[in-house]
Amino acid sequence: MPLDPPCIFCRIVQGKAEASLVYRDSLVTAFMDMNPIAPGHVLIVPNDHVPDLASLEAEAGSQMMSTAGRLSQALRRAPLEVEGVNLHLSDGAAAGQEVFHCHLHLIPRHAGDGIGFRRGLAHHDRDRADLDQVASMIRAGLTDGANT
Amino acid sequence: MPLDPPCIFCRIVQGKAEASLVYRDSLVTAFMDMNPIAPGHVLIVPNDHVPDLASLEAEAGSQMMSTAGRLSQALRRAPLEVEGVNLHLSDGAAAGQEVFHCHLHLIPRHAGDGIGFRRGLAHHDRDRADLDQVASMIRAGLTDGANT
Repeated sequence: MPLDPPCIFCRIVQGKAEASLVYRDSLVTAFMDMNPIAPGHVLIVPNDHVPDLASLEAEAGSQMMSTAGRLSQALRRAPLEVEGVNLHLSDGAAAGQEVFHCHLHLIPRHAGDGIGFRRGLAHHDRDRADLDQVASMIRAGLTDGANT
Repeated sequence: MPLDPPCIFCRIVQGKAEASLVYRDSLVTAFMDMNPIAPGHVLIVPNDHVPDLASLEAEAGSQMMSTAGRLSQALRRAPLEVEGVNLHLSDGAAAGQEVFHCHLHLIPRHAGDGIGFRRGLAHHDRDRADLDQVASMIRAGLTDGANT
């Protein structure tokens, strides 16, 4: 690992860039998003530089998820307007990923905040035969011997 | 567990409701979303009935995350238009949760699909002092002895 990594999240993990830290252990670090969608918007990142979801080790992914669960409770206990929480992860530029160090967004929600997932223009209602066909295509892509 | 649970995802896990299955093991089940945002939209659920993120056991959460990683690769290998993937989880009605059996969305993305996260109307640019204060509030909510 270079002494001064170019990745902003690596620099935060290593204490070389300013951040408002929320949680840290040997696998993951959580800190406030600099451009929050809502007050309390947290990012959870693996400490190792992992550009995408495919490169994320199971142990770090597991710790990101359990940290998200604990922080979603901590957010509800904080004096913030939190009635629910979204977890969101963008994998790939086409999915909206901007920093190529895998990160999980934790976004506090309350009724009427106007935040949400935008469905896009296309409508994709499917009948069972269509869904079965797509499921079959995805199963075929699971090349590591997983059962269905 | 009742013989005929009211929860639709429990019925799918138990094979009592129709679904297009993608993956299944002792902890999690993945199947096609009936109202897909994009072709290939998959849901990953814990096999046990878990209404919310706070109730999700670490082992099941870990398996949901690693399954999401493997399926995000399988989606890219399938003959579908997949340049990226979003993971999305809604915890609580205010966050958009509609079925109260914890579930992780896996949403294929491609450039120009119009899908994405909607930021809402409020702007929350913060300076460092504000972010530090919010981080401090959330850390105080982490009541289980986690360090920062």
